[in-house]
Amino acid sequence: MERRNFIKGAALAGTGAALAAPAYAQGKRTLTMVTSVPEGFAVFDDAAQNFVDRVNAMSDGQLTIDKKPAGELVGAFEVFDAVSAGQADLYHSAEYYFMGQHPGLAYFTSVPFGMTGPETMSWYYHNGGHELHDELSSIFNLKPFLCGNTGHQPGGWFNKEINSAADLQGLKFRMPGFGGQALGLTGASVQNIPGGEIYQALASGAIDGAEWIGPFADERLGFQEICKFYYTSGFHEPGSALCASFNLDVYESLTASQKAMVETAAHATHSWNLAQSNANNAKALDRLKAAGVKVLEFDDSIWEAFGKAAKEAQDGFMDDELFARIRNSYEDSIASTYAWMSMSDAIFADKRSKYKG
Amino acid sequence: MERRNFIKGAALAGTGAALAAPAYAQGKRTLTMVTSVPEGFAVFDDAAQNFVDRVNAMSDGQLTIDKKPAGELVGAFEVFDAVSAGQADLYHSAEYYFMGQHPGLAYFTSVPFGMTGPETMSWYYHNGGHELHDELSSIFNLKPFLCGNTGHQPGGWFNKEINSAADLQGLKFRMPGFGGQALGLTGASVQNIPGGEIYQALASGAIDGAEWIGPFADERLGFQEICKFYYTSGFHEPGSALCASFNLDVYESLTASQKAMVETAAHATHSWNLAQSNANNAKALDRLKAAGVKVLEFDDSIWEAFGKAAKEAQDGFMDDELFARIRNSYEDSIASTYAWMSMSDAIFADKRSKYKG
Repeated sequence: MERRNFIKGAALAGTGAALAAPAYAQGKRTLTMVTSVPEGFAVFDDAAQNFVDRVNAMSDGQLTIDKKPAGELVGAFEVFDAVSAGQADLYHSAEYYFMGQHPGLAYFTSVPFGMTGPETMSWYYHNGGHELHDELSSIFNLKPFLCGNTGHQPGGWFNKEINSAADLQGLKFRMPGFGGQALGLTGASVQNIPGGEIYQALASGAIDGAEWIGPFADERLGFQEICKFYYTSGFHEPGSALCASFNLDVYESLTASQKAMVETAAHATHSWNLAQSNANNAKALDRLKAAGVKVLEFDDSIWEAFGKAAKEAQDGFMDDELFARIRNSYEDSIASTYAWMSMSDAIFADKRSKYKG
Repeated sequence: MERRNFIKGAALAGTGAALAAPAYAQGKRTLTMVTSVPEGFAVFDDAAQNFVDRVNAMSDGQLTIDKKPAGELVGAFEVFDAVSAGQADLYHSAEYYFMGQHPGLAYFTSVPFGMTGPETMSWYYHNGGHELHDELSSIFNLKPFLCGNTGHQPGGWFNKEINSAADLQGLKFRMPGFGGQALGLTGASVQNIPGGEIYQALASGAIDGAEWIGPFADERLGFQEICKFYYTSGFHEPGSALCASFNLDVYESLTASQKAMVETAAHATHSWNLAQSNANNAKALDRLKAAGVKVLEFDDSIWEAFGKAAKEAQDGFMDDELFARIRNSYEDSIASTYAWMSMSDAIFADKRSKYKG
């Protein structure tokens, strides 16, 4: 498989541009944060705002983060390069949008047949995930923190029923990351489109279907007005983390207490956001059903095709040493957390559904 | 069922004692936090220390929390009354230890057939849980924040196999909370013993068995040296939250930024701690097996007995208006989060185990 020389590109990105002068006024400091979604986008921008609100409240006005939605300073998918080059201080986005910079970034959002939200937290905070994220990001002069999680993402919105893998052939579908690459291997025609542009692409017929986040977030965007078939459990993003990543020079210029605030705020936002989706999705799905959406599950033959394609998509990058190290760490952590959670939480949930008084 | 007049007792606790003078020095302030476990106790004290470290680092020396383990200032189960009365500034503990003060406190740790860790976060942060916790705690002049989560707790350690509910008759077992009350209704002789005293109680034969936290935490306490039968999935505490609760007058005297630090630190610690258990339990369980422990699951007939007893234990308090409101809110939130997670995360995990390439 042809691909970029990641490290070479990275070295250029990390050193080629001068930093913008930080904004100081009377001992106070404002950092500019660029994001990949419009203002007020449910779940995704909620996470960005929750992080900003926490830092701003804790710093007592000494450190203010000024959020700039997609398109205001730079485009949705340009935030990584902009912060790497020092044109903005930090971004809030999803790392897999930037897997063209390095495919290992995908593991810090979600990969097909990968981690659920709780599994992601165990890897990131206790099994070496954050350290690998730091190592990869430092190549690009960035300092990252997971900062949000959408939870499990449904299979998505379709304009017809998908009864076998054959129904995916030629389907024009919006899906980013390794999930999108895998879907492409099954025969779909896959595009990546920023969140703020999906509705128009569906409405114009430029795409036949799309996945975004989940019932609560998707409902707000009105996809149910166009697509009438919604597949619940999906293969592609079982727990998508969001990320706040600082220009490394900017981060290093923060005080020790400001660094602690940023780390703790991002950590709190990670689980606050995951809990938000899990709290709201069932009721949103009920409303979608009431609006005429048909809710379905993929057949096992389709899951099988997704499984093969997901492996193939990732295997193509295993000759990159850092990619392989990230993937192996990720898979080792899944094996360990799932071994426990499948015999504890999962068995309990089954017994609860049967024997709760 | 006989029980205390909660509100009457509460009013006394909230107003009867003068506050200790806060410790100020050169604009800096130190708060004394009393806990219910010894220093260094895995998972439980790890959560307390994680919270302290976050607040101390973020406040840049302006607000320091000084942790006092169980027994140093007050006993493990005396922390609630001590902080309510102003003899210490805050406690870190598990709320169900204090259900004698009000049985509704149990829902802010865990109840049998209740919430998993992720479900708890949805209720607490998005479905009204924290607001109810505030309302209940304010009766006792306290301001609470969930601050840690042990994750799903196993059925526990036994000195014999438990093959039917009949095997529980007369068994002397350590289990707190509504889980303990339910186990008592099945015929066991249940005691509550602080974490720091369980090993000695087992070793002396004062009790026949005990539950504590999970493989990673239990292994450190050495229960495997005494009990050779360990039941994994348990009914009694499917996701036990820990809590940092401030004397309300002390909390109100904090600055706005200090209040934000405390809230965000507790929130981060909640998921950091949950992720810790899920990251470490499988490997700890492997070590326990290697040490000769037999790992088992309860038979369905026992789950059925637990289900009936769990309901009976909680039903006895439904004439208390606030208890009923807390329980109903808790159950509504479970229904909503489980409706979503059972069709998303749970189906995904099953498909992943079958079709991952």
